[in-house]
Amino acid sequence: MTITIIGMGLIGGSLCKAIKTKTSYTCYGVNRNPAVLEAALRDKAIDKGFSLGERLPISDVYIVCFHPRATIDYIEARAQEFAPGSLVLDVCGVKAGIVQAAEKALLPHNVRFLGTHPMAGREFSGYDYSLPTLYDGASIVLTPTAHSQQKDVDLVKHLADGLGFGRIVVTEPEEHDRIIAFTSQMAHVVANAYVKTPMLERHGGFTGGSFQDMTRVARLNADMWTELFLMNRKPLLDEINNIILHLGEYRDALANGDENRLHDLLKDGSDRKIQSLEPEDH
Amino acid sequence: MTITIIGMGLIGGSLCKAIKTKTSYTCYGVNRNPAVLEAALRDKAIDKGFSLGERLPISDVYIVCFHPRATIDYIEARAQEFAPGSLVLDVCGVKAGIVQAAEKALLPHNVRFLGTHPMAGREFSGYDYSLPTLYDGASIVLTPTAHSQQKDVDLVKHLADGLGFGRIVVTEPEEHDRIIAFTSQMAHVVANAYVKTPMLERHGGFTGGSFQDMTRVARLNADMWTELFLMNRKPLLDEINNIILHLGEYRDALANGDENRLHDLLKDGSDRKIQSLEPEDH
Repeated sequence: MTITIIGMGLIGGSLCKAIKTKTSYTCYGVNRNPAVLEAALRDKAIDKGFSLGERLPISDVYIVCFHPRATIDYIEARAQEFAPGSLVLDVCGVKAGIVQAAEKALLPHNVRFLGTHPMAGREFSGYDYSLPTLYDGASIVLTPTAHSQQKDVDLVKHLADGLGFGRIVVTEPEEHDRIIAFTSQMAHVVANAYVKTPMLERHGGFTGGSFQDMTRVARLNADMWTELFLMNRKPLLDEINNIILHLGEYRDALANGDENRLHDLLKDGSDRKIQSLEPEDH
Repeated sequence: MTITIIGMGLIGGSLCKAIKTKTSYTCYGVNRNPAVLEAALRDKAIDKGFSLGERLPISDVYIVCFHPRATIDYIEARAQEFAPGSLVLDVCGVKAGIVQAAEKALLPHNVRFLGTHPMAGREFSGYDYSLPTLYDGASIVLTPTAHSQQKDVDLVKHLADGLGFGRIVVTEPEEHDRIIAFTSQMAHVVANAYVKTPMLERHGGFTGGSFQDMTRVARLNADMWTELFLMNRKPLLDEINNIILHLGEYRDALANGDENRLHDLLKDGSDRKIQSLEPEDH
């Protein structure tokens, strides 16, 4: 099988390295920057490199590894270049908008599409930070639609397994987006809001693990997350409104000096967290 | 030097183990539960054990390792039992209320007091989870007042250094409480609020590191944190109101589909986080 990775930043570069390290598939790389292609050839992360302007090579699977808007733009602009009968994947953190646009662009050309979201990342971006082990043990979500074929889901499951993913979840694009608003997007909103206080400058020496954990993802790629948030407005708005509501409950209990209420609120949150722990979290 | 640890849970037990592992001081342990004293003697974490009902042994330093309210109650009830000329420390996560009550109770008995806050912990409590390495590299905050003596600050700095603490900060009790509202208490409020959504039950397979980090301290000891929050109402209220205000900004930008505003908000938070990173965080 031949796989072409289009866009070789942290996510795409790590896919190249994982493919060449852990499987026997042929891997082509497509990137705008020739220095990245050279580095990837030197790293034996790709078998052959192509510039972004060149015609796409013939391949069984293409994985487009751009940010959301660029992913849609690329697929729409180059739809007729993917090999007929091939399968195209994306790696974006939102799915409904991407899947809809990609299927519309590709299906008329006899090219199939399957949305995927590999749940791994780092606070850094670019090929230089990519790792063959980035996906080890991570989750990947596949979001087939009524247009998808079971053989493609099976193929991507097999590929994900070979690349080291620890958990493969199959769900609808809309369900993915609702859950991801909570598990990922909100974590970035909250961490990013958390550091906006004059106290931040005075925190040196006053932090244990809880502060570092709470604010780690405050450092983010504003371009990418703005795109992700705007493509998932309704679910994310629901979650932001929800946490504002709940924070107000602690605020009111504290303002009223209502010890029992405050205790109940904290106990409820703690109990929910404990109940939600998966076996591997314990 | 002889040090008596009063209350041998996670914090006190770890102090006993660190003292006997890393220093040559004599360490007495005081605890309600005889099984804990036996375990600590077996672990060579104390030289001698005393039940809570017994008269306190003569000692140079006493470290009261109870929750905030119990710390005040104990110091007030047993003030005349501490050796005259000795130094008493506490380990609570709030300082102004504790320091004020402790100095009032102890100074008339010719016993000195210094508030301390070792910034280390685990999601578990009790002697069984205590570790001689709990404080390795952690911060400890000392909060002397106008009644404090420099020799006591110096002695506790020396002791903290010997126990493995990585950073020693000296500040006023009120300043400690304002900063800790942000760095620690808020992290617990926010994590605890974060999990209160119907999405929590559906999150399996949709989480990367950001979710785990964001919600780790949602699991908390509701009794202790209720006490800590109520003893630090004003600073914590300021911080909760502040994050609600900022979360509303993201919400409004998103609701309005205002891409530039949303991008600015995210960029601002990310820049603040990067600027606040201390050299060891990079």
